[in-house]
Amino acid sequence: MSSVFQKIIEGEIPCHKVYEDELVFAFLDISPLSLGHTLVIPKEPAETLDKLSAESAAAIGRVLPQISRAVLAATGASAFNILQNNGASAHQAVFHVHFHIIPKQDNGAGLGIGWRPGTLESAEGAALAQRIAEQL
Amino acid sequence: MSSVFQKIIEGEIPCHKVYEDELVFAFLDISPLSLGHTLVIPKEPAETLDKLSAESAAAIGRVLPQISRAVLAATGASAFNILQNNGASAHQAVFHVHFHIIPKQDNGAGLGIGWRPGTLESAEGAALAQRIAEQL
Repeated sequence: MSSVFQKIIEGEIPCHKVYEDELVFAFLDISPLSLGHTLVIPKEPAETLDKLSAESAAAIGRVLPQISRAVLAATGASAFNILQNNGASAHQAVFHVHFHIIPKQDNGAGLGIGWRPGTLESAEGAALAQRIAEQL
Repeated sequence: MSSVFQKIIEGEIPCHKVYEDELVFAFLDISPLSLGHTLVIPKEPAETLDKLSAESAAAIGRVLPQISRAVLAATGASAFNILQNNGASAHQAVFHVHFHIIPKQDNGAGLGIGWRPGTLESAEGAALAQRIAEQL
Protein backbone atom coordinates (compact mmCIF):
# COMPACT_ATOMS: atom_id res chain seq x y z
CA MET A 1 0.00 0.00 0.00
CA SER A 2 1.52 3.25 -1.18
CA SER A 3 1.38 6.21 1.20
CA VAL A 4 0.42 9.68 0.04
CA PHE A 5 4.08 10.68 0.28
CA GLN A 6 5.13 7.81 -1.97
CA LYS A 7 2.58 9.05 -4.51
CA ILE A 8 4.02 12.56 -4.21
CA ILE A 9 7.54 11.26 -4.84
CA GLU A 10 6.31 9.35 -7.86
CA GLY A 11 4.42 12.36 -9.22
CA GLU A 12 0.99 10.77 -8.94
CA ILE A 13 -0.06 13.49 -6.51
CA PRO A 14 1.12 17.07 -7.18
CA CYS A 15 3.17 19.01 -4.66
CA HIS A 16 5.16 22.21 -4.30
CA LYS A 17 8.61 20.68 -4.56
CA VAL A 18 11.61 22.55 -3.18
CA TYR A 19 14.39 19.94 -3.42
CA GLU A 20 15.19 16.49 -4.79
CA ASP A 21 18.27 14.28 -5.00
CA GLU A 22 18.88 10.57 -5.42
CA LEU A 23 17.66 9.67 -1.92
CA VAL A 24 15.74 12.71 -0.64
CA PHE A 25 12.63 14.69 -1.64
CA ALA A 26 11.36 17.94 -0.06
CA PHE A 27 8.13 19.87 -0.57
CA LEU A 28 5.83 22.32 1.18
CA ASP A 29 3.36 21.03 3.76
CA ILE A 30 -0.12 21.89 2.47
CA SER A 31 -1.37 22.35 6.05
CA PRO A 32 1.48 24.58 7.28
CA LEU A 33 1.95 25.60 10.88
CA SER A 34 3.75 28.69 9.58
CA LEU A 35 4.93 30.20 6.31
CA GLY A 36 7.58 27.95 4.76
CA HIS A 37 6.66 24.74 6.65
CA THR A 38 8.54 22.13 4.63
CA LEU A 39 8.68 18.32 4.68
CA VAL A 40 11.94 16.50 3.98
CA ILE A 41 11.45 12.80 3.27
CA PRO A 42 13.49 9.82 2.11
CA LYS A 43 12.56 8.15 -1.14
CA GLU A 44 12.99 4.89 0.76
CA PRO A 45 9.48 3.95 1.99
CA ALA A 46 10.30 3.41 5.68
CA GLU A 47 7.37 3.98 8.03
CA THR A 48 9.40 5.22 10.99
CA LEU A 49 12.93 6.50 11.57
CA ASP A 50 14.04 3.41 13.46
CA LYS A 51 13.32 1.41 10.29
CA LEU A 52 15.15 3.76 7.91
CA SER A 53 18.52 2.76 6.44
CA ALA A 54 21.61 4.58 7.69
CA GLU A 55 22.29 5.66 4.11
CA SER A 56 18.92 7.40 3.66
CA ALA A 57 19.08 8.89 7.15
CA ALA A 58 22.54 10.31 6.43
CA ALA A 59 21.31 11.74 3.14
CA ILE A 60 18.48 13.56 4.92
CA GLY A 61 20.78 14.81 7.67
CA ARG A 62 23.20 16.13 5.08
CA VAL A 63 20.63 18.39 3.40
CA LEU A 64 18.71 19.60 6.46
CA PRO A 65 21.05 22.58 7.12
CA GLN A 66 20.95 23.64 3.46
CA ILE A 67 17.17 23.38 3.11
CA SER A 68 16.69 25.10 6.48
CA ARG A 69 18.87 28.01 5.32
CA ALA A 70 16.81 28.29 2.13
CA VAL A 71 13.51 28.25 4.07
CA LEU A 72 14.80 30.97 6.42
CA ALA A 73 16.08 33.08 3.52
CA ALA A 74 12.81 32.78 1.62
CA THR A 75 10.54 33.51 4.57
CA GLY A 76 12.56 35.96 6.67
CA ALA A 77 12.25 33.77 9.78
CA SER A 78 15.29 33.35 12.01
CA ALA A 79 14.08 30.62 14.39
CA PHE A 80 12.76 27.18 13.48
CA ASN A 81 12.08 23.67 14.70
CA ILE A 82 12.87 20.30 13.18
CA LEU A 83 10.29 17.68 14.18
CA GLN A 84 10.05 14.05 13.16
CA ASN A 85 7.27 11.89 14.64
CA ASN A 86 7.18 8.11 14.94
CA GLY A 87 3.96 6.30 15.86
CA ALA A 88 0.36 7.47 16.05
CA SER A 89 0.69 8.27 19.77
CA ALA A 90 3.66 10.52 18.88
CA HIS A 91 1.54 12.56 16.43
CA GLN A 92 2.55 10.69 13.25
CA ALA A 93 -0.25 10.82 10.65
CA VAL A 94 1.44 9.66 7.42
CA PHE A 95 3.44 6.46 7.79
CA HIS A 96 6.38 7.43 5.65
CA VAL A 97 9.32 9.05 7.50
CA HIS A 98 9.16 12.85 7.30
CA PHE A 99 11.17 15.62 8.90
CA HIS A 100 9.23 18.86 9.39
CA ILE A 101 11.12 22.15 9.02
CA ILE A 102 8.83 24.62 10.81
CA PRO A 103 9.77 28.31 10.89
CA LYS A 104 8.91 30.10 14.13
CA GLN A 105 7.47 33.47 13.29
CA ASP A 106 7.63 36.63 15.37
CA ASN A 107 3.84 36.45 15.88
CA GLY A 108 4.29 33.03 17.52
CA ALA A 109 3.08 30.97 14.55
CA GLY A 110 4.90 27.67 14.26
CA LEU A 111 5.26 24.55 16.35
CA GLY A 112 3.73 24.49 19.83
CA ILE A 113 5.89 22.65 22.33
CA GLY A 114 4.73 21.16 25.63
CA TRP A 115 7.64 20.53 27.97
CA ARG A 116 7.15 18.82 31.34
CA PRO A 117 10.62 17.65 32.35
CA GLY A 118 11.37 15.23 35.15
CA THR A 119 14.72 14.56 36.73
CA LEU A 120 17.25 11.81 36.15
CA GLU A 121 18.84 10.34 39.26
CA SER A 122 22.53 9.63 38.84
CA ALA A 123 22.43 5.88 39.52
CA GLU A 124 19.31 5.44 37.39
CA GLY A 125 20.92 7.43 34.57
CA ALA A 126 24.11 5.38 34.65
CA ALA A 127 22.16 2.11 34.45
CA LEU A 128 19.89 3.37 31.67
CA ALA A 129 22.77 4.74 29.60
CA GLN A 130 24.47 1.38 29.89
CA ARG A 131 21.34 -0.46 28.75
CA ILE A 132 21.05 1.81 25.70
CA ALA A 133 24.75 1.60 24.87
CA GLU A 134 24.57 -2.20 25.02
CA GLN A 135 21.97 -2.12 22.23
CA LEU A 136 24.28 -0.15 19.93
CA MET B 1 32.64 30.86 25.23
CA SER B 2 32.16 27.13 25.66
CA SER B 3 28.59 25.82 26.00
CA VAL B 4 27.64 23.23 28.58
CA PHE B 5 27.44 20.66 25.77
CA GLN B 6 30.98 21.47 24.64
CA LYS B 7 32.12 20.86 28.20
CA ILE B 8 30.27 17.54 28.23
CA ILE B 9 31.97 16.47 24.99
CA GLU B 10 35.34 17.41 26.44
CA GLY B 11 34.64 15.57 29.69
CA GLU B 12 34.76 18.68 31.87
CA ILE B 13 31.15 18.04 32.90
CA PRO B 14 30.04 14.44 33.51
CA CYS B 15 27.19 12.85 31.58
CA HIS B 16 25.53 9.51 30.99
CA LYS B 17 27.03 8.80 27.57
CA VAL B 18 25.33 6.34 25.23
CA TYR B 19 27.28 6.82 21.98
CA GLU B 20 30.33 8.52 20.50
CA ASP B 21 32.07 8.56 17.14
CA GLU B 22 34.44 10.94 15.39
CA LEU B 23 31.76 13.58 14.74
CA VAL B 24 28.85 12.72 17.04
CA PHE B 25 28.23 12.43 20.79
CA ALA B 26 25.03 11.19 22.51
CA PHE B 27 23.99 11.19 26.17
CA LEU B 28 20.94 11.15 28.41
CA ASP B 29 19.07 14.41 29.02
CA ILE B 30 19.22 15.06 32.77
CA SER B 31 15.79 16.71 32.67
CA PRO B 32 14.01 14.01 30.66
CA LEU B 33 10.48 14.35 29.27
CA SER B 34 10.26 10.55 29.44
CA LEU B 35 12.41 7.54 30.23
CA GLY B 36 15.26 7.32 27.71
CA HIS B 37 15.18 10.96 26.57
CA THR B 38 18.51 11.22 24.74
CA LEU B 39 20.44 14.10 23.14
CA VAL B 40 22.44 13.54 19.96
CA ILE B 41 24.87 16.36 19.23
CA PRO B 42 27.68 17.16 16.80
CA LYS B 43 31.16 17.67 18.18
CA GLU B 44 31.29 20.67 15.86
CA PRO B 45 30.24 23.67 18.01
CA ALA B 46 27.52 25.07 15.73
CA GLU B 47 24.82 27.04 17.55
CA THR B 48 21.97 26.18 15.19
CA LEU B 49 21.33 23.61 12.48
CA ASP B 50 21.47 26.13 9.64
CA LYS B 51 25.09 26.83 10.67
CA LEU B 52 26.15 23.16 10.92
CA SER B 53 28.38 21.62 8.24
CA ALA B 54 26.82 19.11 5.86
CA GLU B 55 29.39 16.57 7.05
CA SER B 56 28.40 16.80 10.73
CA ALA B 57 24.70 16.90 9.85
CA ALA B 58 25.06 13.75 7.74
CA ALA B 59 26.93 12.04 10.55
CA ILE B 60 24.09 12.79 12.97
CA GLY B 61 21.45 11.69 10.47
CA ARG B 62 23.30 8.44 9.90
CA VAL B 63 23.19 7.38 13.56
CA LEU B 64 19.70 8.62 14.50
CA PRO B 65 17.95 5.38 13.42
CA GLN B 66 20.47 3.22 15.27
CA ILE B 67 20.37 5.24 18.50
CA SER B 68 16.57 5.44 18.30
CA ARG B 69 16.35 1.66 18.01
CA ALA B 70 18.61 1.28 21.04
CA VAL B 71 16.53 3.74 23.08
CA LEU B 72 13.31 1.91 22.16
CA ALA B 73 14.85 -1.48 22.97
CA ALA B 74 16.17 -0.30 26.33
CA THR B 75 12.96 1.43 27.42
CA GLY B 76 10.23 -0.68 25.84
CA ALA B 77 8.68 2.35 24.13
CA SER B 78 7.44 1.96 20.55
CA ALA B 79 6.66 5.59 19.65
CA PHE B 80 9.02 8.55 19.79
CA ASN B 81 9.70 12.07 18.57
CA ILE B 82 12.84 13.65 17.19
CA LEU B 83 12.97 17.38 17.99
CA GLN B 84 15.67 19.90 17.19
CA ASN B 85 15.15 23.55 18.16
CA ASN B 86 16.84 26.61 16.69
CA GLY B 87 16.51 30.00 18.37
CA ALA B 88 15.24 31.07 21.78
CA SER B 89 11.73 31.69 20.42
CA ALA B 90 11.74 28.09 19.11
CA HIS B 91 12.48 26.70 22.58
CA GLN B 92 16.28 26.39 22.23
CA ALA B 93 18.01 26.74 25.60
CA VAL B 94 21.57 25.53 24.94
CA PHE B 95 23.19 27.08 21.89
CA HIS B 96 24.93 24.01 20.57
CA VAL B 97 22.94 21.95 18.03
CA HIS B 98 21.13 19.04 19.68
CA PHE B 99 18.62 16.49 18.44
CA HIS B 100 16.27 15.20 21.13
CA ILE B 101 15.15 11.56 20.93
CA ILE B 102 12.04 11.53 23.13
CA PRO B 103 10.20 8.23 23.71
CA LYS B 104 6.42 8.55 23.89
CA GLN B 105 5.17 6.39 26.71
CA ASP B 106 1.80 4.69 27.00
CA ASN B 107 0.93 6.95 29.94
CA GLY B 108 1.37 9.98 27.66
CA ALA B 109 4.77 11.06 29.01
CA GLY B 110 6.98 12.54 26.33
CA LEU B 111 6.87 15.55 24.05
CA GLY B 112 3.77 17.71 24.03
CA ILE B 113 2.91 18.94 20.54
CA GLY B 114 0.73 21.96 19.72
CA TRP B 115 -0.53 21.85 16.13
CA ARG B 116 -2.55 24.69 14.63
CA PRO B 117 -2.31 24.20 10.87
CA GLY B 118 -3.32 26.71 8.28
CA THR B 119 -3.83 26.13 4.59
CA LEU B 120 -1.56 26.71 1.63
CA GLU B 121 -3.21 28.21 -1.45
CA SER B 122 -1.96 26.68 -4.69
CA ALA B 123 -0.62 29.87 -6.28
CA GLU B 124 0.96 31.00 -3.02
CA GLY B 125 2.54 27.56 -2.55
CA ALA B 126 3.99 27.52 -6.05
CA ALA B 127 5.57 30.95 -5.58
CA LEU B 128 6.94 30.08 -2.13
CA ALA B 129 8.40 26.75 -3.26
CA GLN B 130 10.13 28.58 -6.11
CA ARG B 131 11.58 31.17 -3.73
CA ILE B 132 12.95 28.41 -1.47
CA ALA B 133 14.29 26.34 -4.37
CA GLU B 134 16.10 29.40 -5.72
CA GLN B 135 18.05 29.61 -2.45
CA LEU B 136 19.29 26.05 -2.81
